[in-house]
Amino acid sequence: MDYSYYFPIWKKLTPEQQNLISENILYRSVKKGTRLHNGSTECTGLFLIQSGQLRAYILSDKGHEITLYRLFDMDICLFSASCIMRSIQFEITIEAEKDTTLWLIPPEIYKKIMEESAPAANYTNEIMASRFSEVMWLIEQIMWKSLDKRVAAFLLNEASIEHTRQLKTTHESIARHLGTHREVVTRMLRYFQDENMVKLSRGTIEIIDEQRLKALDDDE
Amino acid sequence: MDYSYYFPIWKKLTPEQQNLISENILYRSVKKGTRLHNGSTECTGLFLIQSGQLRAYILSDKGHEITLYRLFDMDICLFSASCIMRSIQFEITIEAEKDTTLWLIPPEIYKKIMEESAPAANYTNEIMASRFSEVMWLIEQIMWKSLDKRVAAFLLNEASIEHTRQLKTTHESIARHLGTHREVVTRMLRYFQDENMVKLSRGTIEIIDEQRLKALDDDE
Repeated sequence: MDYSYYFPIWKKLTPEQQNLISENILYRSVKKGTRLHNGSTECTGLFLIQSGQLRAYILSDKGHEITLYRLFDMDICLFSASCIMRSIQFEITIEAEKDTTLWLIPPEIYKKIMEESAPAANYTNEIMASRFSEVMWLIEQIMWKSLDKRVAAFLLNEASIEHTRQLKTTHESIARHLGTHREVVTRMLRYFQDENMVKLSRGTIEIIDEQRLKALDDDE
Repeated sequence: MDYSYYFPIWKKLTPEQQNLISENILYRSVKKGTRLHNGSTECTGLFLIQSGQLRAYILSDKGHEITLYRLFDMDICLFSASCIMRSIQFEITIEAEKDTTLWLIPPEIYKKIMEESAPAANYTNEIMASRFSEVMWLIEQIMWKSLDKRVAAFLLNEASIEHTRQLKTTHESIARHLGTHREVVTRMLRYFQDENMVKLSRGTIEIIDEQRLKALDDDE
């Protein structure tokens, strides 16, 4: 399947617009850990993800991170082309969390199409609204959910993404995702272990009692 | 000046689209404290603010608030018409913070125009990107800025909006804006008073030393 399949409004574009994309689109294969986009200093372009996993996060002056959202197969990454809208005044870093293959539409090409085509502009609106919704969810988590619930939710989400109960992750990495300190995460995980909800070993967190983690996450 | 002046892409619309708006637009005058839009249960429409001040905030199950952003003269409020985009999956409450006059474009009218018109859709994108930028700024504040800096920034911002150093506000109200507890704000304000940065009296906070509050806010 080619990129037209990954671009839902392909059939609503004119033949000229389709040609413009076909002549300029690039295919890229990147290794896990590659930083694909770096704040507002770059304007990389729109990514159409064929397969793999990207992570979008923000970075403080002091190097602290918070994960904003993840992108998976068939997702579209808009903020790597943030220069196409002048009102985007924030910096997001995009990193491959797994080996990833994707197509890249250069920003000037996408901008031109968006300016001409109401379907393309409305589609872009919907992508932005989805990401906005994820970030609003994150604010609610940060403000109103205690850290035990956030760690439980994170472990359950990872298990669901990776299709395993044996999570290969470090306390440091969980802390980075949640924007907190490693020590705090370690303390929480030890509490979960004492309660027989997880089992900790070097580099691995095994989920033992999914139901209780879920109950913790759901509990108001 | 009529509403066409408040709607920057007016001249890029077709005569039919302009007529559609003219036939359906409503003018409203609302008192300070009026709740104009209530989460996703309503779909009120797009507001063009003639004069006044609106506050957009989110509300937790337990009734806690956080202010997301404010809207002023000539601003456009998009999320009061959130039903026009299916990917908007969050609930925002909009309240008049001052007596406000505005025009309202009904959601189905704006949706129709956005679907037809690339300039309208792109303009909507820019509005959403602006609000997104404000929310991203807020996340950075919450995660990486200590409360003394946030309270200082809030006082300075209020003084700038109200053009006064005598702020008529309560500790409770500041706590609501910042998503924290009144006691915490009171403690912080007393510390500011001990340091001769503000002077507290019933219902009023007077800014005494703007420079030091600024230094606190700027300090990394």
